[in-house]
Amino acid sequence: MARVFNFSAGPSVLPEVVLKQAADEMLDYKGSGMSVMEMSHRSKVYDNIIKEAEKDLRDLMDIPDNYKVLFLQGGASQQFAAIPMNLMKNGVADYIITGQWAKKACEEAKKYGKVNVVASSADKTFSYIPDCSDLPISEDADYVYICHNNTIYGTTYKKLPNTKGKILVADMSSDILSQPVNVSDYGLIYFGVQKNVGPAGVVVVIIREDLIRDDVPTYCPTMLKYKTQADNDSLYNTPPCYGIYICGLVFKWVKEMGGLSAMKIHNEKKAAILYDFLDSSKMFHGTVVKEDRSLMNVPFVTGNEELDAKFVKEATAAGFVNLKGHRTVGGMRASIYNAMPIEGVEKLVAFMKDFEEKNS
Amino acid sequence: MARVFNFSAGPSVLPEVVLKQAADEMLDYKGSGMSVMEMSHRSKVYDNIIKEAEKDLRDLMDIPDNYKVLFLQGGASQQFAAIPMNLMKNGVADYIITGQWAKKACEEAKKYGKVNVVASSADKTFSYIPDCSDLPISEDADYVYICHNNTIYGTTYKKLPNTKGKILVADMSSDILSQPVNVSDYGLIYFGVQKNVGPAGVVVVIIREDLIRDDVPTYCPTMLKYKTQADNDSLYNTPPCYGIYICGLVFKWVKEMGGLSAMKIHNEKKAAILYDFLDSSKMFHGTVVKEDRSLMNVPFVTGNEELDAKFVKEATAAGFVNLKGHRTVGGMRASIYNAMPIEGVEKLVAFMKDFEEKNS
Repeated sequence: MARVFNFSAGPSVLPEVVLKQAADEMLDYKGSGMSVMEMSHRSKVYDNIIKEAEKDLRDLMDIPDNYKVLFLQGGASQQFAAIPMNLMKNGVADYIITGQWAKKACEEAKKYGKVNVVASSADKTFSYIPDCSDLPISEDADYVYICHNNTIYGTTYKKLPNTKGKILVADMSSDILSQPVNVSDYGLIYFGVQKNVGPAGVVVVIIREDLIRDDVPTYCPTMLKYKTQADNDSLYNTPPCYGIYICGLVFKWVKEMGGLSAMKIHNEKKAAILYDFLDSSKMFHGTVVKEDRSLMNVPFVTGNEELDAKFVKEATAAGFVNLKGHRTVGGMRASIYNAMPIEGVEKLVAFMKDFEEKNS
Repeated sequence: MARVFNFSAGPSVLPEVVLKQAADEMLDYKGSGMSVMEMSHRSKVYDNIIKEAEKDLRDLMDIPDNYKVLFLQGGASQQFAAIPMNLMKNGVADYIITGQWAKKACEEAKKYGKVNVVASSADKTFSYIPDCSDLPISEDADYVYICHNNTIYGTTYKKLPNTKGKILVADMSSDILSQPVNVSDYGLIYFGVQKNVGPAGVVVVIIREDLIRDDVPTYCPTMLKYKTQADNDSLYNTPPCYGIYICGLVFKWVKEMGGLSAMKIHNEKKAAILYDFLDSSKMFHGTVVKEDRSLMNVPFVTGNEELDAKFVKEATAAGFVNLKGHRTVGGMRASIYNAMPIEGVEKLVAFMKDFEEKNS
C-alpha cells in the first residue's frame, strides 16, 4: 500500500526520508555492527548521536549558552509535575488556561503550591487566546505558564503574554520547530517530541541554567529533578536512546529544509491553502477566531454532525486519515505539522471542494 | 559490515529477526500506510499493538488475572521513587542490598519513609547473595525489596527471600523472560526493557491489583501513581508507542523460541559453556561465588589489569564487543541475554582459549 496523508494530532507524520534512513540503519548503524537500539548509552558511538542531536537543536533554535537542553521521559504530563517541583521557590505560579493541556498542567501544579489562573478562554470553548497585555500577575509568582499552541482547539499565541518580569514557561509540544523562537523570552521551554519531531517517549526541556536548583522539595523524585539530569547530560540513567536518535535525524532534516525561517514559510503556505478554502467555503468553516489561528492544527466543522461523519469516512477511504476532530470540539481537525508536504494539504483541499460540490 | 557479537550489559543485543521485521515495517505497518512511530496511540491499529503485547507477555509469564501490566516510562530509576510512593502505607520498607541498583532504590525510598537494610553483600563487593532464609523483616514493612539479578556483579537469587508474609517487590530488569517466574510469589515485578526485551525508554510494571491505591501522598505526580496508569490501561498520556511495539515483537519471538522454559534451557546452555571454561582456565576466572552465578551477566578477570585491557582490545577487533567490565568490578563482563545466540558464546570461548594460549 502507498503511504497515506496522515493528519493525526500526534503521534503524527514524520519525514519519509528520516523513516527510510532509520530502516536502512536498523541492523547496522554506520558500520557499528549493531542497531541504535542495541547500543550502550555510555558508548562512544551513542554519545556522538545524543551530542549531535543536542547540537543540531541548539543550532536550529539558536539556543543561548546559558540554557541547558535535557532529553527526558514521561511526556508533557510528567513535566506538569516536574515544573512546579523544580521552579516553585515562593510556592506560587500563574497559569493562563487556553485549553485542556494548560488546564491539566494547572491542576497538577496545585499539588505543589498556590496557583492562580490569571487568564482563560474557557468561556468560548478555548476558541481564542485571551488578551495577555495586562494580566494580574502575582507579585511573588515563580513563573507564568502557557501552552504556546493548543493542539485540540487550534489556537496559538501570536504575541507572548506580558509577564511583568516574571519567568515565562511554555509547553511547545505542538509547534516546536515550526517557526523561529526567541529562546531568551523564556525561562523554560519544553516539548513532547511526538508531534513535530519524533516518536513518543521523549520530552525535551530547554531551561535557563540559573533556574536549575538543588534545593527542590525532598519528595521530588531524583529522576524529576532537573539538576540530576543537567549534571548528567541527560544520562543519569538509560535515556530513550532510539527516540533521541530519530529526533536527531529530524533535526538534520529541518536543517536541510533551511531551518526554522524556511519551515515557517513552508508552514504558512500550507496553512494559508487550508484557511483560505475554509474562509471561502459555504460548507466548511474554521472554529477559531482568525487572529489566533494555529499554523499546525486546523479544526473545522460543517455544522452538521452527520455530514462531518460522512466527510471523515470518505476522506479516510481516499487516503486522508486521522481527520476526526477532538471530542470536545467535534467535526474535523487537520494537523499539518512540519513533515506534512504541501501536496498533502493541496490534495485535501481538492477533496474537500469535491465533497462540497457533491453534497450541497 | 557484518553484525558483531554484542555483549553489552544494556541496552543490548536484540533478535535479528525482530530488527528485520521492524525495518521492513518502518514506512508502512501492515498496510496502514504509516510507521508505528506515526500512529495515534488512540487509533485502532495501535490499540491492537499494545493489547497484543500485553497478551503475549501475560501468556509468556503466565500472569494471573489479578495482576495489572503497565507500560511506563522513566526506567527503573523512576520506579525507585514510584514504588515507595505507591506501596508505603505504614511508611516502612525492607531492602536487601545486593548491588548498586538495589542500593540506589534503597536510597531513593528513604525520601518517602523508614527504610531498613535487612541484608547486604556489600562486604565482599556484592560477589554473592546473602542468606535470606531468616531475615529481621520489619513487623510493619509494607514490602521487601530485591534486585533479582545483579547486572554489574553477575549474581542472581536462586531462592527467593523468606519475607515472612510481607509483599515481595523485585527489579527483574536484567533477567526478565530468561526463565519461568512464579508471578504469584511477588506483589510487584518490574523491568526496564532495555536488556532482555526492547529499546530503552519502556519500563513494565506487573502489580497485584489490591496494591494499587488511590490514597497515595498528594505530592506523588499523577504520572507516577499506578492507579492513574492502571485505570487508563497505560494510555493516560501518549505512551512510548514504538518501544512497546518492539517489545511486542520480542515477546512473539520468545514465544516462537518455545517460551520461558525453552529460554531457560537455551540460557543455561550458553552460561555453562562460559562458566565451564572459566572454571578450567588458568588465566580467566569468574568473580562470583558459584552457587549465585547469574545466567545473564558473567563477570571475569585475569587478575592482571594490563592483560584484561589487552584482551578487551583484541576481542573488540575480532567482533566481540562491549566486554569491558563495570568499573567497580574491573576486568571483563559478558552479558549473554536471550538474544545472544549460542554461536556467540562458543566463538567467544574459542577466542578466549586462543588468547590464553598465546599469552601464557
